[in-house]
Amino acid sequence: MHKLARLGMFAIAATLGAASAAHAQFAKPEDAIRYRQSVMFLQAQHLGRIGAMVKGARPYDKDVAVANAQVLEQLARLPWQAFGAGTDQGGQTRALPAIWKDTAKFEGEQKKLMDNTSALLKAAQTGDLGALKQAFGPVAQTCKSCHDDFRKD
Amino acid sequence: MHKLARLGMFAIAATLGAASAAHAQFAKPEDAIRYRQSVMFLQAQHLGRIGAMVKGARPYDKDVAVANAQVLEQLARLPWQAFGAGTDQGGQTRALPAIWKDTAKFEGEQKKLMDNTSALLKAAQTGDLGALKQAFGPVAQTCKSCHDDFRKD
Repeated sequence: MHKLARLGMFAIAATLGAASAAHAQFAKPEDAIRYRQSVMFLQAQHLGRIGAMVKGARPYDKDVAVANAQVLEQLARLPWQAFGAGTDQGGQTRALPAIWKDTAKFEGEQKKLMDNTSALLKAAQTGDLGALKQAFGPVAQTCKSCHDDFRKD
Repeated sequence: MHKLARLGMFAIAATLGAASAAHAQFAKPEDAIRYRQSVMFLQAQHLGRIGAMVKGARPYDKDVAVANAQVLEQLARLPWQAFGAGTDQGGQTRALPAIWKDTAKFEGEQKKLMDNTSALLKAAQTGDLGALKQAFGPVAQTCKSCHDDFRKD
Protein backbone atom coordinates (compact mmCIF):
# COMPACT_ATOMS: atom_id res chain seq x y z
CA MET A 1 0.00 0.00 0.00
CA HIS A 2 1.15 3.51 -0.67
CA LYS A 3 2.73 5.23 2.27
CA LEU A 4 0.24 8.08 2.30
CA ALA A 5 -2.58 5.56 2.41
CA ARG A 6 -0.93 3.89 5.38
CA LEU A 7 -0.50 7.18 7.14
CA GLY A 8 -4.11 7.94 6.34
CA MET A 9 -5.19 4.74 8.07
CA PHE A 10 -3.24 5.67 11.12
CA ALA A 11 -4.67 9.15 11.01
CA ILE A 12 -8.12 7.58 10.93
CA ALA A 13 -7.22 5.43 13.92
CA ALA A 14 -5.86 8.44 15.76
CA THR A 15 -8.91 10.53 14.95
CA LEU A 16 -11.27 7.79 16.02
CA GLY A 17 -9.42 7.67 19.26
CA ALA A 18 -9.14 11.37 19.87
CA ALA A 19 -12.52 12.50 18.72
CA SER A 20 -15.09 9.90 19.65
CA ALA A 21 -15.72 6.96 21.89
CA ALA A 22 -12.05 6.73 22.74
CA HIS A 23 -12.59 5.52 26.26
CA ALA A 24 -15.25 3.13 25.02
CA GLN A 25 -12.54 1.26 23.09
CA PHE A 26 -11.16 0.06 26.40
CA ALA A 27 -12.99 -2.31 28.70
CA LYS A 28 -11.98 -0.21 31.70
CA PRO A 29 -9.96 2.95 32.46
CA GLU A 30 -7.17 0.75 33.84
CA ASP A 31 -6.73 -0.78 30.38
CA ALA A 32 -6.49 2.66 28.77
CA ILE A 33 -3.86 3.67 31.31
CA ARG A 34 -1.88 0.50 30.77
CA TYR A 35 -2.23 0.93 26.99
CA ARG A 36 -0.74 4.43 26.87
CA GLN A 37 1.98 3.50 29.35
CA SER A 38 2.87 0.46 27.25
CA VAL A 39 3.16 2.56 24.10
CA MET A 40 5.31 5.14 25.86
CA PHE A 41 7.61 2.49 27.30
CA LEU A 42 8.15 1.13 23.79
CA GLN A 43 8.72 4.66 22.48
CA ALA A 44 11.39 5.25 25.13
CA GLN A 45 13.15 2.00 24.23
CA HIS A 46 13.20 2.65 20.49
CA LEU A 47 14.12 6.31 20.84
CA GLY A 48 16.89 5.26 23.22
CA ARG A 49 18.40 3.03 20.56
CA ILE A 50 18.62 5.93 18.13
CA GLY A 51 19.82 8.16 20.96
CA ALA A 52 22.68 5.78 21.68
CA MET A 53 23.91 6.19 18.09
CA VAL A 54 23.34 9.94 18.09
CA LYS A 55 25.37 10.28 21.29
CA GLY A 56 28.10 7.94 20.07
CA ALA A 57 27.47 5.28 22.71
CA ARG A 58 26.81 2.81 19.89
CA PRO A 59 28.21 2.67 16.38
CA TYR A 60 26.01 4.30 13.75
CA ASP A 61 24.08 1.82 11.63
CA LYS A 62 21.63 3.12 9.06
CA ASP A 63 19.45 0.00 9.07
CA VAL A 64 19.11 0.08 12.84
CA ALA A 65 18.23 3.78 12.71
CA VAL A 66 15.59 3.25 10.03
CA ALA A 67 14.02 0.22 11.73
CA ASN A 68 13.69 2.06 15.03
CA ALA A 69 12.50 5.29 13.43
CA GLN A 70 9.84 3.35 11.60
CA VAL A 71 8.53 1.82 14.80
CA LEU A 72 8.58 5.27 16.42
CA GLU A 73 6.61 6.81 13.57
CA GLN A 74 3.88 4.19 14.00
CA LEU A 75 3.84 4.30 17.79
CA ALA A 76 3.50 8.10 17.77
CA ARG A 77 -0.05 7.69 16.50
CA LEU A 78 -1.24 5.33 19.20
CA PRO A 79 -1.27 6.65 22.77
CA TRP A 80 -3.74 9.51 22.29
CA GLN A 81 -6.79 7.28 21.92
CA ALA A 82 -6.13 6.12 25.48
CA PHE A 83 -6.61 9.54 27.07
CA GLY A 84 -10.39 9.46 26.83
CA ALA A 85 -12.71 10.96 29.42
CA GLY A 86 -12.63 9.02 32.66
CA THR A 87 -9.10 7.74 32.23
CA ASP A 88 -7.61 10.32 34.59
CA GLN A 89 -7.95 7.69 37.30
CA GLY A 90 -8.53 3.96 37.62
CA GLY A 91 -4.93 2.90 37.74
CA GLN A 92 -1.51 4.19 38.63
CA THR A 93 -1.15 7.22 36.41
CA ARG A 94 0.92 10.38 36.37
CA ALA A 95 -1.41 12.05 33.87
CA LEU A 96 -2.22 15.60 34.93
CA PRO A 97 -5.71 17.17 34.75
CA ALA A 98 -4.30 19.62 32.17
CA ILE A 99 -4.67 16.84 29.58
CA TRP A 100 -8.45 17.17 29.75
CA LYS A 101 -8.49 20.94 30.39
CA ASP A 102 -6.01 22.25 27.86
CA THR A 103 -7.02 19.90 25.08
CA ALA A 104 -5.82 22.15 22.26
CA LYS A 105 -2.31 22.33 23.72
CA PHE A 106 -2.24 18.58 24.37
CA GLU A 107 -3.32 17.89 20.80
CA GLY A 108 -0.64 20.27 19.61
CA GLU A 109 1.95 18.12 21.37
CA GLN A 110 0.47 15.01 19.76
CA LYS A 111 0.77 16.54 16.32
CA LYS A 112 4.33 17.66 17.05
CA LEU A 113 5.33 14.12 18.00
CA MET A 114 3.75 12.67 14.88
CA ASP A 115 5.41 15.29 12.66
CA ASN A 116 8.78 14.99 14.37
CA THR A 117 8.87 11.19 14.22
CA SER A 118 7.99 11.34 10.51
CA ALA A 119 10.90 13.74 10.05
CA LEU A 120 13.13 11.40 12.07
CA LEU A 121 12.28 8.52 9.76
CA LYS A 122 13.06 10.60 6.68
CA ALA A 123 16.35 11.66 8.26
CA ALA A 124 17.21 8.05 9.12
CA GLN A 125 16.55 7.03 5.53
CA THR A 126 19.13 9.50 4.20
CA GLY A 127 21.85 7.43 5.87
CA ASP A 128 23.46 10.61 7.15
CA LEU A 129 24.30 10.64 10.85
CA GLY A 130 24.25 14.44 10.92
CA ALA A 131 20.69 14.49 9.60
CA LEU A 132 19.71 11.86 12.17
CA LYS A 133 21.19 13.95 14.99
CA GLN A 134 19.32 17.01 13.82
CA ALA A 135 16.00 15.17 13.66
CA PHE A 136 16.52 13.37 16.97
CA GLY A 137 16.52 16.56 19.06
CA PRO A 138 12.98 17.70 18.23
CA VAL A 139 11.57 14.24 19.03
CA ALA A 140 13.29 14.06 22.42
CA GLN A 141 12.31 17.68 23.06
CA THR A 142 8.66 16.91 22.34
CA CYS A 143 8.66 14.01 24.82
CA LYS A 144 10.08 16.40 27.40
CA SER A 145 7.81 19.39 26.77
CA CYS A 146 4.70 17.19 26.81
CA HIS A 147 5.81 15.48 30.02
CA ASP A 148 6.66 18.83 31.60
CA ASP A 149 3.13 20.12 31.01
CA PHE A 150 1.02 17.00 31.21
CA ARG A 151 2.74 14.48 33.48
CA LYS A 152 3.36 14.56 37.21
CA ASP A 153 7.01 14.77 38.22
CA MET B 1 7.78 4.09 0.66
CA HIS B 2 6.69 0.89 -1.02
CA LYS B 3 5.02 -1.59 1.29
CA LEU B 4 7.52 -4.33 0.60
CA ALA B 5 10.32 -1.97 1.51
CA ARG B 6 8.56 -1.21 4.78
CA LEU B 7 8.08 -4.88 5.50
CA GLY B 8 11.73 -5.41 4.67
CA MET B 9 12.72 -2.84 7.28
CA PHE B 10 10.67 -4.58 9.88
CA ALA B 11 12.14 -7.90 8.85
CA ILE B 12 15.56 -6.37 9.40
CA ALA B 13 14.49 -5.15 12.82
CA ALA B 14 13.12 -8.57 13.67
CA THR B 15 16.24 -10.33 12.45
CA LEU B 16 18.51 -7.98 14.35
CA GLY B 17 16.53 -8.75 17.43
CA ALA B 18 16.28 -12.47 17.00
CA ALA B 19 19.72 -13.25 15.75
CA SER B 20 22.22 -11.05 17.52
CA ALA B 21 22.76 -8.96 20.59
CA ALA B 22 19.06 -8.97 21.31
CA HIS B 23 19.42 -8.84 25.05
CA ALA B 24 22.15 -6.21 24.74
CA GLN B 25 19.55 -3.82 23.30
CA PHE B 26 18.01 -3.58 26.73
CA ALA B 27 19.67 -1.92 29.69
CA LYS B 28 18.52 -4.73 31.97
CA PRO B 29 16.46 -7.95 31.76
CA GLU B 30 13.58 -6.16 33.52
CA ASP B 31 13.34 -3.78 30.56
CA ALA B 32 13.23 -6.66 28.09
CA ILE B 33 10.45 -8.29 30.11
CA ARG B 34 8.48 -5.07 30.30
CA TYR B 35 9.06 -4.49 26.58
CA ARG B 36 7.62 -7.81 25.47
CA GLN B 37 4.74 -7.56 27.94
CA SER B 38 3.95 -4.07 26.66
CA VAL B 39 3.85 -5.26 23.06
CA MET B 40 1.62 -8.19 23.96
CA PHE B 41 -0.77 -6.00 25.91
CA LEU B 42 -1.12 -3.76 22.85
CA GLN B 43 -1.59 -6.81 20.65
CA ALA B 44 -4.41 -8.06 22.88
CA GLN B 45 -6.13 -4.68 22.77
CA HIS B 46 -5.95 -4.31 19.00
CA LEU B 47 -6.88 -7.93 18.31
CA GLY B 48 -9.78 -7.52 20.72
CA ARG B 49 -11.16 -4.65 18.65
CA ILE B 50 -11.20 -6.81 15.53
CA GLY B 51 -12.55 -9.69 17.60
CA ALA B 52 -15.46 -7.55 18.75
CA MET B 53 -16.47 -7.00 15.13
CA VAL B 54 -15.89 -10.61 14.18
CA LYS B 55 -18.09 -11.76 17.05
CA GLY B 56 -20.77 -9.16 16.32
CA ALA B 57 -20.32 -7.30 19.62
CA ARG B 58 -19.51 -4.18 17.59
CA PRO B 59 -20.70 -3.11 14.16
CA TYR B 60 -18.35 -3.99 11.34
CA ASP B 61 -16.31 -1.06 10.07
CA LYS B 62 -13.70 -1.65 7.39
CA ASP B 63 -11.56 1.34 8.36
CA VAL B 64 -11.43 0.25 11.98
CA ALA B 65 -10.52 -3.29 10.92
CA VAL B 66 -7.73 -2.09 8.64
CA ALA B 67 -6.29 0.37 11.16
CA ASN B 68 -6.15 -2.28 13.86
CA ALA B 69 -4.84 -4.99 11.54
CA GLN B 70 -2.10 -2.62 10.44
CA VAL B 71 -0.98 -2.04 14.01
CA LEU B 72 -1.09 -5.79 14.64
CA GLU B 73 1.04 -6.54 11.62
CA GLN B 74 3.71 -4.14 12.86
CA LEU B 75 3.55 -5.26 16.50
CA ALA B 76 3.92 -8.93 15.50
CA ARG B 77 7.54 -8.21 14.58
CA LEU B 78 8.56 -6.67 17.87
CA PRO B 79 8.38 -8.88 20.95
CA TRP B 80 10.90 -11.54 19.89
CA GLN B 81 13.95 -9.31 20.29
CA ALA B 82 13.05 -9.12 23.99
CA PHE B 83 13.49 -12.85 24.65
CA GLY B 84 17.28 -12.74 24.66
CA ALA B 85 19.45 -14.89 26.89
CA GLY B 86 19.17 -13.89 30.53
CA THR B 87 15.66 -12.50 30.23
CA ASP B 88 14.06 -15.60 31.74
CA GLN B 89 14.20 -13.77 35.07
CA GLY B 90 14.75 -10.27 36.40
CA GLY B 91 11.13 -9.23 36.57
CA GLN B 92 7.67 -10.70 36.87
CA THR B 93 7.47 -13.04 33.93
CA ARG B 94 5.43 -16.06 32.94
CA ALA B 95 7.92 -17.01 30.24
CA LEU B 96 8.68 -20.75 30.37
CA PRO B 97 12.19 -22.23 29.98
CA ALA B 98 10.94 -23.91 26.78
CA ILE B 99 11.45 -20.55 25.04
CA TRP B 100 15.22 -20.95 25.35
CA LYS B 101 15.23 -24.74 24.99
CA ASP B 102 12.92 -25.32 22.05
CA THR B 103 14.08 -22.33 20.03
CA ALA B 104 13.05 -23.75 16.67
CA LYS B 105 9.48 -24.28 17.81
CA PHE B 106 9.34 -20.83 19.42
CA GLU B 107 10.63 -19.24 16.22
CA GLY B 108 8.03 -21.19 14.30
CA GLU B 109 5.32 -19.56 16.41
CA GLN B 110 6.88 -16.14 15.76
CA LYS B 111 6.78 -16.72 12.03
CA LYS B 112 3.20 -17.95 12.23
CA LEU B 113 2.12 -14.79 14.03
CA MET B 114 3.88 -12.56 11.48
CA ASP B 115 2.37 -14.48 8.57
CA ASN B 116 -1.10 -14.63 10.09
CA THR B 117 -1.22 -10.92 10.95
CA SER B 118 -0.12 -10.09 7.39
CA ALA B 119 -2.97 -12.25 6.15
CA LEU B 120 -5.33 -10.52 8.58
CA LEU B 121 -4.37 -7.13 7.18
CA LYS B 122 -4.96 -8.31 3.62
CA ALA B 123 -8.32 -9.72 4.66
CA ALA B 124 -9.26 -6.46 6.40
CA GLN B 125 -8.40 -4.53 3.25
CA THR B 126 -10.87 -6.53 1.18
CA GLY B 127 -13.70 -4.95 3.16
CA ASP B 128 -15.36 -8.34 3.46
CA LEU B 129 -16.41 -9.35 6.97
CA GLY B 130 -16.36 -13.04 6.02
CA ALA B 131 -12.73 -12.77 4.95
CA LEU B 132 -11.91 -10.93 8.17
CA LYS B 133 -13.52 -13.67 10.25
CA GLN B 134 -11.59 -16.34 8.41
CA ALA B 135 -8.27 -14.56 8.94
CA PHE B 136 -8.99 -13.71 12.58
CA GLY B 137 -9.10 -17.32 13.74
CA PRO B 138 -5.51 -18.24 12.84
CA VAL B 139 -4.16 -15.11 14.61
CA ALA B 140 -6.08 -15.83 17.81
CA GLN B 141 -5.11 -19.49 17.55
CA THR B 142 -1.42 -18.58 17.26
CA CYS B 143 -1.60 -16.45 20.41
CA LYS B 144 -3.15 -19.42 22.18
CA SER B 145 -0.83 -22.15 20.93
CA CYS B 146 2.26 -20.07 21.73
CA HIS B 147 0.95 -19.25 25.21
CA ASP B 148 0.05 -22.91 25.79
CA ASP B 149 3.60 -24.03 25.11
CA PHE B 150 5.69 -21.09 26.24
CA ARG B 151 3.82 -19.24 28.97
CA LYS B 152 2.98 -20.28 32.52
CA ASP B 153 -0.73 -20.71 33.20
